[in-house]
Amino acid sequence: MSRIDAIVVGAGISGLTAAWRLAQAGKRVRVLEANDRVGGRTLNHRFTSGEVVEVGGQWVGPTQARILGLLNELQLETFPLWNQGDNLTLFGGKLKSYRGTIPRFAPHVLLDVLQAQVRLDRLAKQIPLDDPSRHPRAGEWDRMTFAEWIRRSLKTGQGRQVLELVSGAVFAAAPHDLSFLHVLFYIRSGTDLDTLLGVANGAQQDRILGGSQRICEELAARLGDAVRLGQPVRALRQDEAGVELLTDSASHQSARVIMAIPPTLLLRITQEPLLPGWRDQLLQRLPQGAVIKCMALYETPFWRARGLSGQATSERGPVRLTFDNSVPGSSKGVLMGFIEGDEARQWSAAAADERRAAVLECFARYFGAEAQQPREYVDQCWADEPFARGCYAALFPPGLWSNGAARLRQPVGRLHFAGTETATRWMGYFDGAVQAGERAAAEVLALD
Amino acid sequence: MSRIDAIVVGAGISGLTAAWRLAQAGKRVRVLEANDRVGGRTLNHRFTSGEVVEVGGQWVGPTQARILGLLNELQLETFPLWNQGDNLTLFGGKLKSYRGTIPRFAPHVLLDVLQAQVRLDRLAKQIPLDDPSRHPRAGEWDRMTFAEWIRRSLKTGQGRQVLELVSGAVFAAAPHDLSFLHVLFYIRSGTDLDTLLGVANGAQQDRILGGSQRICEELAARLGDAVRLGQPVRALRQDEAGVELLTDSASHQSARVIMAIPPTLLLRITQEPLLPGWRDQLLQRLPQGAVIKCMALYETPFWRARGLSGQATSERGPVRLTFDNSVPGSSKGVLMGFIEGDEARQWSAAAADERRAAVLECFARYFGAEAQQPREYVDQCWADEPFARGCYAALFPPGLWSNGAARLRQPVGRLHFAGTETATRWMGYFDGAVQAGERAAAEVLALD
Repeated sequence: MSRIDAIVVGAGISGLTAAWRLAQAGKRVRVLEANDRVGGRTLNHRFTSGEVVEVGGQWVGPTQARILGLLNELQLETFPLWNQGDNLTLFGGKLKSYRGTIPRFAPHVLLDVLQAQVRLDRLAKQIPLDDPSRHPRAGEWDRMTFAEWIRRSLKTGQGRQVLELVSGAVFAAAPHDLSFLHVLFYIRSGTDLDTLLGVANGAQQDRILGGSQRICEELAARLGDAVRLGQPVRALRQDEAGVELLTDSASHQSARVIMAIPPTLLLRITQEPLLPGWRDQLLQRLPQGAVIKCMALYETPFWRARGLSGQATSERGPVRLTFDNSVPGSSKGVLMGFIEGDEARQWSAAAADERRAAVLECFARYFGAEAQQPREYVDQCWADEPFARGCYAALFPPGLWSNGAARLRQPVGRLHFAGTETATRWMGYFDGAVQAGERAAAEVLALD
Repeated sequence: MSRIDAIVVGAGISGLTAAWRLAQAGKRVRVLEANDRVGGRTLNHRFTSGEVVEVGGQWVGPTQARILGLLNELQLETFPLWNQGDNLTLFGGKLKSYRGTIPRFAPHVLLDVLQAQVRLDRLAKQIPLDDPSRHPRAGEWDRMTFAEWIRRSLKTGQGRQVLELVSGAVFAAAPHDLSFLHVLFYIRSGTDLDTLLGVANGAQQDRILGGSQRICEELAARLGDAVRLGQPVRALRQDEAGVELLTDSASHQSARVIMAIPPTLLLRITQEPLLPGWRDQLLQRLPQGAVIKCMALYETPFWRARGLSGQATSERGPVRLTFDNSVPGSSKGVLMGFIEGDEARQWSAAAADERRAAVLECFARYFGAEAQQPREYVDQCWADEPFARGCYAALFPPGLWSNGAARLRQPVGRLHFAGTETATRWMGYFDGAVQAGERAAAEVLALD
């Protein structure tokens, strides 16, 4: 047996990036992945007619230099999300279409939403990305939920609904799940609200040819048999000599370990010595968001012929947010919808055919009766995934940052922490996953 | 091997009560306890001079019929907490003494606190104990933290500080950790605020002779070799044939299992089939409170000679709440203090001697310089306990009850759920632990 320098737990973007950087630096690495596939919270789905779509994370956009660099390195191509035609909004009981980025809300609603955006961006700009709790007003903002801020700061019911939709779209969570300080951090971490929410020039601008899971497939191909699938780590023991990881069937030893899994899953690995109490307590307070990603494949993107972009935002669920997720080289059309937060938990408990019916009814509400008759339908409830237990990422409730959540990035003995939740830039996104993976790899390399 | 009818996981009050009720009904039971002791979140400590005190839960009081009935059944005696003399408050920078239950706040502060108490009690009375989300205003209250309600409803800074102290004392958590709906539920679950907070006629009225861990010791003695210590359950598998539980060294089979452990620890047991996604998501959102219970033993209860009760409440930490925890039959005195919530996490990370010094400084602030020189000192950081990971109990953040938390009491196949967090009456207390244990046992018995 050859000695292993570092084991990475989790073959998502963050873990594989860390492993690849270590391998490039000449380290002997091993990656232990619990699932029988790589990809983490990215996952491709192939319709029977051949179109590959993503039922997990899928987008990249401007200001995401790290993931764009990695795509370049891996020779993966991007293409823009379909973004032509009119968008739709359903608020105040009325379906309205609009062109560009500003919905046709009543003027007082628009004003309400825009003043909120200006305030959020202005406050977010001040947040120290390495540790939001260093801001002089951090305590005040961290004791408040985003829901409380919305109630205080928006004057119109529709304006508040729009902000709730933003919370769902960005966090897969309700405003009352989130510390207001974390929301400000997240906005700054993702540049600003326009960038976070936008298609053109925003975080939803581009997709990856062949589907986003290809990022991990390409990295895994380079790592070869260093990547071991179907190896859920159950226990971990470290001492002066090294770290031992136990899976159901094997023991793996190395000098260093990089954990690249969601925070809540860290607690499901028995550790010796125990994690310090404060750290366990913080991890108990970092639940995953909840999202069901739903897609229907149609003979054609029929909405385009009617001048629609496929993008809808709505006050009515379960699908409150849609996109045209068709793929290049196919004449077929794909509508994609998100079910988020509370509704994701409710609908993940429903029978699959009921959920399908409810989703298609939403698509039909926005794009017409044709949407009721797809060729195929697929959805993915991320809470049901054994080694994700939710998406997009962990949520920071009130008090977490003030209680030292920035220290969750710090190593514990021989354990280092990657995963997009430990990123300072684009936390929760692919770009953050890359940043975290590269930072953790650098920590290990610096120990030599 | 004789067949086992039911396995109980966790030898705290709830699990042992469940096991004992099943055994009394003629069932063959086994109890698997992870620690090398019974007691769960109760734990006795013996000072070298022989005094037994409790570093975990310790009190019983009126309206707690179930635990009082069990004590009677087990022939355990109670004695009142020392409650004579003047209490102290330190608010607004001033240490004041008062007799009875109403501190000598300035009139406008007193009025502010009392109007809040009246409103909380009035709203709490309306909450359906079996499922708070059935209240017509549950959605509104569950989207709000207790912190938001305090900011809205109290007009004075000192009044707010008092409510924060209440939050720490009752939940071992900050107001921003808690759904306002949950706070209302908890008040009703514990009768009303006076009962929840009181010594005389309240939840802090009586202690158990020999220490509260004796409850579990007595139950375990009756169960004999059915109780197996040092058996942390790592994995659980159920199918039509039964349930199999795996510990580090053994496999245990039975027809039914009662889980009597804190919610967050349920997620640390690998389950097959997986828990449903919605259920995992809710458990991810039920962290344990954080508390350090601190006690100093003195030659005499010197504060009594100065007319003091040993009870202090304070705006200054780390110890903001103290009691005289001396025991009958000893001439020595015991001061007890609580460090709660954020401060408990911070101080559990500190060196033991620094924590001791900080606690004794608090005791001296309230009771004089003599408090700096105890014969012995002991404290217990519950976040550091591997099979508790926090105390007193799980905290319900915004959205949990509305997302179906009441359904966490429902069985999952052959799994039934006890533990004080599944109680409707006196959740979080011994009495709730007994109710939950008896309810879970009754579920299993009803299946015959």
